[in-house]
Amino acid sequence: MNKEKLKVAIVGASGFTGSELARLLSDHPKVEIKMITSESHQGKPFSELHPQFFDRLDIPLVSAEEVSKEELDVIFLALPHGVSMDFVAKWKDSGAKIIDLSGDFRLSTKEVYEEWYNKKHSYPEGFATAVYGLPELFSEKIKPATLVANPGCYPTASILSLAPLFAKQLIKENSVIIDAKSGLTGAGIKASATTHFSNVNENFKAYGIAGHRHTIEIEEQLGGLAGGQTAVQFTPHLLPVDRGILVTAYAQVSGEMDQERLTEIYRDFYKDKPFVRLRNQAPGIKDVRGSHYCDVFPVWDKRTNRVIAISAIDNLLKGAASQAVHNMNLMFGLEDAEGLAQIPLKP
Amino acid sequence: MNKEKLKVAIVGASGFTGSELARLLSDHPKVEIKMITSESHQGKPFSELHPQFFDRLDIPLVSAEEVSKEELDVIFLALPHGVSMDFVAKWKDSGAKIIDLSGDFRLSTKEVYEEWYNKKHSYPEGFATAVYGLPELFSEKIKPATLVANPGCYPTASILSLAPLFAKQLIKENSVIIDAKSGLTGAGIKASATTHFSNVNENFKAYGIAGHRHTIEIEEQLGGLAGGQTAVQFTPHLLPVDRGILVTAYAQVSGEMDQERLTEIYRDFYKDKPFVRLRNQAPGIKDVRGSHYCDVFPVWDKRTNRVIAISAIDNLLKGAASQAVHNMNLMFGLEDAEGLAQIPLKP
Amino acid sequence: MNKEKLKVAIVGASGFTGSELARLLSDHPKVEIKMITSESHQGKPFSELHPQFFDRLDIPLVSAEEVSKEELDVIFLALPHGVSMDFVAKWKDSGAKIIDLSGDFRLSTKEVYEEWYNKKHSYPEGFATAVYGLPELFSEKIKPATLVANPGCYPTASILSLAPLFAKQLIKENSVIIDAKSGLTGAGIKASATTHFSNVNENFKAYGIAGHRHTIEIEEQLGGLAGGQTAVQFTPHLLPVDRGILVTAYAQVSGEMDQERLTEIYRDFYKDKPFVRLRNQAPGIKDVRGSHYCDVFPVWDKRTNRVIAISAIDNLLKGAASQAVHNMNLMFGLEDAEGLAQIPLKP
Amino acid sequence: MNKEKLKVAIVGASGFTGSELARLLSDHPKVEIKMITSESHQGKPFSELHPQFFDRLDIPLVSAEEVSKEELDVIFLALPHGVSMDFVAKWKDSGAKIIDLSGDFRLSTKEVYEEWYNKKHSYPEGFATAVYGLPELFSEKIKPATLVANPGCYPTASILSLAPLFAKQLIKENSVIIDAKSGLTGAGIKASATTHFSNVNENFKAYGIAGHRHTIEIEEQLGGLAGGQTAVQFTPHLLPVDRGILVTAYAQVSGEMDQERLTEIYRDFYKDKPFVRLRNQAPGIKDVRGSHYCDVFPVWDKRTNRVIAISAIDNLLKGAASQAVHNMNLMFGLEDAEGLAQIPLKP
Repeated sequence: MNKEKLKVAIVGASGFTGSELARLLSDHPKVEIKMITSESHQGKPFSELHPQFFDRLDIPLVSAEEVSKEELDVIFLALPHGVSMDFVAKWKDSGAKIIDLSGDFRLSTKEVYEEWYNKKHSYPEGFATAVYGLPELFSEKIKPATLVANPGCYPTASILSLAPLFAKQLIKENSVIIDAKSGLTGAGIKASATTHFSNVNENFKAYGIAGHRHTIEIEEQLGGLAGGQTAVQFTPHLLPVDRGILVTAYAQVSGEMDQERLTEIYRDFYKDKPFVRLRNQAPGIKDVRGSHYCDVFPVWDKRTNRVIAISAIDNLLKGAASQAVHNMNLMFGLEDAEGLAQIPLKP
Repeated sequence: MNKEKLKVAIVGASGFTGSELARLLSDHPKVEIKMITSESHQGKPFSELHPQFFDRLDIPLVSAEEVSKEELDVIFLALPHGVSMDFVAKWKDSGAKIIDLSGDFRLSTKEVYEEWYNKKHSYPEGFATAVYGLPELFSEKIKPATLVANPGCYPTASILSLAPLFAKQLIKENSVIIDAKSGLTGAGIKASATTHFSNVNENFKAYGIAGHRHTIEIEEQLGGLAGGQTAVQFTPHLLPVDRGILVTAYAQVSGEMDQERLTEIYRDFYKDKPFVRLRNQAPGIKDVRGSHYCDVFPVWDKRTNRVIAISAIDNLLKGAASQAVHNMNLMFGLEDAEGLAQIPLKP
Repeated sequence: MNKEKLKVAIVGASGFTGSELARLLSDHPKVEIKMITSESHQGKPFSELHPQFFDRLDIPLVSAEEVSKEELDVIFLALPHGVSMDFVAKWKDSGAKIIDLSGDFRLSTKEVYEEWYNKKHSYPEGFATAVYGLPELFSEKIKPATLVANPGCYPTASILSLAPLFAKQLIKENSVIIDAKSGLTGAGIKASATTHFSNVNENFKAYGIAGHRHTIEIEEQLGGLAGGQTAVQFTPHLLPVDRGILVTAYAQVSGEMDQERLTEIYRDFYKDKPFVRLRNQAPGIKDVRGSHYCDVFPVWDKRTNRVIAISAIDNLLKGAASQAVHNMNLMFGLEDAEGLAQIPLKP
Repeated sequence: MNKEKLKVAIVGASGFTGSELARLLSDHPKVEIKMITSESHQGKPFSELHPQFFDRLDIPLVSAEEVSKEELDVIFLALPHGVSMDFVAKWKDSGAKIIDLSGDFRLSTKEVYEEWYNKKHSYPEGFATAVYGLPELFSEKIKPATLVANPGCYPTASILSLAPLFAKQLIKENSVIIDAKSGLTGAGIKASATTHFSNVNENFKAYGIAGHRHTIEIEEQLGGLAGGQTAVQFTPHLLPVDRGILVTAYAQVSGEMDQERLTEIYRDFYKDKPFVRLRNQAPGIKDVRGSHYCDVFPVWDKRTNRVIAISAIDNLLKGAASQAVHNMNLMFGLEDAEGLAQIPLKP
């Protein structure tokens, strides 16, 4: 890696993911943001959409067509599912590496995608090259990748809560229940009844019961870790907070277990993963807010012979934008923590 | 029941439960509040502790010793666990019926109590006379009772989420996981790090993992419904809202099941229970806030062969104060809904 | 007043005001809701729009055209500004009394309306018959009225904070500053960037600086009390809460003043007004939430020779729906507090 | 300035200010945290008090007595009012520069302090050497200072809202009203009824009406800017959010004014102040959260002949910790923005 900065484009400026990418990349010492695109807001300063950037990032938004005209090192796609795939197809040979934050290349095959996303896939060839961008599991595959599928927010927290046990093939089949709770930013920036303050504030509810599409992403990754298939029960809920995912995962294990052994398994698995913090008490989502950390806390309940594993992340960061930056760091030989060392903001 | 109003005392004025009892009983057409007691605030107007009552309930607080001097129909004990038992012993022959909102008489025996509450019980004789005051299950026993143990907030929501299946003995042993989330008022009015705004707001965390004392209360009641014992995995979490409990319960069932049959089982079980609303979509806690309702929504997941049952209550009402009033109504031959017909306050 | 119930229609079901009217009128002992209208949701049960009413108010929504076909005592118009006026014109001779919750008839003349609302008025004749429905000031005019213009939420809190001083002509010209803060429901049920959770939660901002249309409503009423014109500086802000308005009003007074005299002036003015509570400490908006109360607290600052008067209301109730019900009670010879005696819901 | 890092101590670890100082200084490229003190938590890791620092700042807390034993460049006092003064006296000749975040040296004299803080001052000599640490006004005095009194949170936002007009002597006497609103962290980390979640959440109220001690701090600074004395009406309110202060300031001006001239005056005054952002729309507190910015927005209301000036800061940062770091940067010849370049965290 020479001294020159990486030239990056952020495609899709209007959402929370785009704005968090812009925030992290603005402060990243090895990056230069060459452009941010938005079709509907072309010409407006980026800070007009996101006033917190006033006087910091006032560059005018441009059309995605400008991407082809510039020599870039990385393209971040902060686009909705179903839109991203076309841009991946378009820019796959542009010389830039692509980090796609949508769900378009997270699953194993076109067939699985089309079943769970209920939508035709326009670039199925991408599945062969796409690498699932969860550095705690796949850093060696991510490094040489040209297309990284940045994991979903729920899957990131869910997979990291149980990965050490799956990797050791200790989980009993069909025993996994993942009860997940997310802050409202997970629902996106679009104004709707779902995101109306009065429907969220002082409220709490489940949604996507028995059918949320993150289920299959979790199943494929956890199953893969154990060398097979697995089924998980996944139920997301909407928290009246801006940021944060807390996962409470339940599982039965095969063989003998106690708290000491359980902690040891987690410590081993995460010993070289600087962003997973093995906690000795239940983490709250505010303990990781504004940071790239995933806090994990596994408990053994001898009364019920079950593991309860808690994990907490900032859904916009470890669950999206900072994970994408971590992937970029790996893909370009930078330090893991470059630009990602923020201490959580609390309170 | 003649035209005269029931004379009631509320023992314990300072907490949320005492204040909600006062609010409901003030507006109850068949009740006269004769006194509200507080040892530490004697002489102060009730509204000084709870300013929302200014100009509405300004009566001076008195010592609990005044209770013995008055002829009362009902005594509500809104006291901490471990304190209530002594007053029950003291007033058991006073002629007044006692509704105890603490946990002191909710369990089956002194032994179970002492194991889970880690505290000596001073009036074990009470267990024989105490009736568990969950009207949806025990209205016939509640009517003649002289001592009612008002259920815990989490147990109320948890039991009602799965009672129809336990009553039909359809639940597979050791398959039940209850992931519960409560508003902060469940933690009480005492100022502490736990209740400090900055630790709650924008935060969310689990607590009491694998050992919360409401576990045994749920197990005894659900087990009893099925005519035996049962073990449940119960994990409470703290929501950054004032009021509300949402329970997400998971269970495997024996025998054939589908959504239609599941709904039918719930509809049958709750058909004469005016305060359980069988919903056709996932309820939020705000749908029941300020009311006596318990909203229930059972889902069959054929992919995993599991029931996911959601229930929502206002923890201070159906989980405490209005349930106590409901019990009073039953004990004195009043209509179930007398004084309890509030439509939820939303938003 | 005979035993028969008042037959009422609520025109406009989808907003918060309509839903609060439905809640209050459902429980009002002298009222029968004959219909609730919605053009866009005709045929749907009311509870489908507002799930808290599930099992309580499931009547199908009808077109506003049904209003003419029924003999009604009262029509509540819960419609946007600019829409209401046409329905007032249409139903003015229907025999029903009209309570309009929009801003269409709150001001003195067509000219003033058109200047501040920037919109042509289609029924200017209405200004002559409309009575400004603030019972604390105009109960005698409201009783015989056939058209009542229900006050705005900010004006209700603002006027009541300073009315005693204006009525005594003690306010110095151009000295009044009203710094007002409202919960988000004041912005309505429509999904937009303004009402998106992530723009409201943990945020706070001013809006409508130096030009909000409630300014003129406040000026006309306070000026009228003093027998002349007045100018007030009015600045609204958006609070990250559902309900409540807090007004902090500042004014200089003519003549001698001290705290005792100030309190006395307020006590005199509000002595027969059951819903204004003169507090002896600063009220919070939660002290009145869910109730019809307006809490008022005037302070004399001798250091600066200024009055600081605080008032708190529930914007959806005293600021809208319960004020409308209060007006109905007056118009039909009912008790002021009929159906309006709710104790505030706190916490 | 050579390459060596500044050696700093943070005295007072338990509060929000101490924890934010630790966060900023941990990431500051020119600083080494030598110790953090706490009398009541000696020996515990800092991260035990503030779990967000887990794995990042786990150094054991030491007694304040350790401060004297180490050669330090800067001592930050994050202590309560009335406690700080003794440590200033003790360490004034230690060779370290002192930045005091309490109110003990913010005012002009012992007499003024004792009147407004209602407390005897033990080190009145300090007033002569202390410099008021508001860099936008006093950077030249701060640079050589050995004792800096870091401004209060409310005064920072209040002074910056009106400083340009006071500096030009354009403000009419006794016309200034500052209506200020602060997030709950301003009330500190101590558990009390005031900080209990249920008293803050969904609530809003004024406090300290007509007597808050920040009044005199604002008056001294604004008066000083205009070369004389001034009186301001200052009313603080408590917002149900963690962080942020929004000030809405009202004033009458002498001479001709219009929006263009007003904007120009502000632009001139703040043209070389990198952390004051002159906004063209009303800022919300979330636009500056997590950052060192003060956003300012002045409006001219020609109808009332009044200026309304809005300012927004993060009370824990520009209102406390980052302002202290800025002062340190100035005192040691570092760049203004060293360690302070965080883009606001939104949402």
